[in-house]
Amino acid sequence: MTSREPKQDRSRATRQRLLEATIDCLAERGWTATTVAVVAERAGVSRGAAQHHFPTREDLITAALDYMFDHRMALAMDEATALPEGEGRTEAVVDRLLDYFTGTLFKAALQVWTAAAADPALRERVVPLEAKFGRVAHRTAIELLGVDDADPVVHRLVQATLDMGRGLGLADVLTDDSARRKQIVRQWAATLDGALGERVR
Amino acid sequence: MTSREPKQDRSRATRQRLLEATIDCLAERGWTATTVAVVAERAGVSRGAAQHHFPTREDLITAALDYMFDHRMALAMDEATALPEGEGRTEAVVDRLLDYFTGTLFKAALQVWTAAAADPALRERVVPLEAKFGRVAHRTAIELLGVDDADPVVHRLVQATLDMGRGLGLADVLTDDSARRKQIVRQWAATLDGALGERVR
Repeated sequence: MTSREPKQDRSRATRQRLLEATIDCLAERGWTATTVAVVAERAGVSRGAAQHHFPTREDLITAALDYMFDHRMALAMDEATALPEGEGRTEAVVDRLLDYFTGTLFKAALQVWTAAAADPALRERVVPLEAKFGRVAHRTAIELLGVDDADPVVHRLVQATLDMGRGLGLADVLTDDSARRKQIVRQWAATLDGALGERVR
Repeated sequence: MTSREPKQDRSRATRQRLLEATIDCLAERGWTATTVAVVAERAGVSRGAAQHHFPTREDLITAALDYMFDHRMALAMDEATALPEGEGRTEAVVDRLLDYFTGTLFKAALQVWTAAAADPALRERVVPLEAKFGRVAHRTAIELLGVDDADPVVHRLVQATLDMGRGLGLADVLTDDSARRKQIVRQWAATLDGALGERVR
């Protein structure tokens, strides 16, 4: 064991604190307020140390979204073992998938996507992230639902489910939309289950 | 006829130019860049005249969203007479409805909703607008589809359609998502048609 290891651990912990503080700060205070200095203070890290890890705001923010998304998806796969098999599985999976769109990570991402809409340089960094998120979320949904993505109807209905999730996420940004959402999720799960049930699983 | 009328007409035209320039400016340059001064210049109106109509940025922006939304919905009802009856109507209506979520008005509203997420004073002004938009869009969809909103399954599936529209709108902000969207709209219309077909019309 060398003396470098504890230092690497500390560095990794600092990095992680910065990434988590970035997501919280974006969701709560918005894009404009989320600077490296503000995030460093929130994470209890010196500004110099923060800038050592992430030279620019764009570096910090894209790294934070990427890290938190991977973390969320890994969690989704872990949690999936606890979801019921057979009847009720589609509703449980849809409910869980759509839950992610009302969390802090979605609210943080929304700030970044919206800023990127009016900022070509940021857009260039965010577009590959968006493509990755879409691909991985789709693959995760397919695995959790246990359906065949090669069937074009299945493929499109799962896409539609994730698009609906994004829309429900947007509807939850300014007010608590959970009561309405619950009814829609239940209905959509029943309709989806019926449509998927007609396909080969 | 008094001399006041032309003045009123001019005033109305100025107001309308400001409202249209606000939506374009929000969609193109984002929330932070959309000030009364920038919009006035874009509309070819003096800053003083703009401030006479809209004392604050919040007044201007909420008035613009409200005006353009009403205008869009009136247009939707007019255009509906040209949509096919019977087979193919659901797809035509869904296609038309979801189109609105990829237009300039949606992109402008997204900027305002996202800013309001981190600004409690703005949020207070935007929440009633969001409620109105949701209500009117739902009523318009019900009328265009010619379905019975008293049926809870119909009610929820129409809500789900609009939520999906919002999600598709968000997916179109950074890249042109029209090819993917087209396939989803077609599939969604078929699934919706099947589910609605089982209900009493």
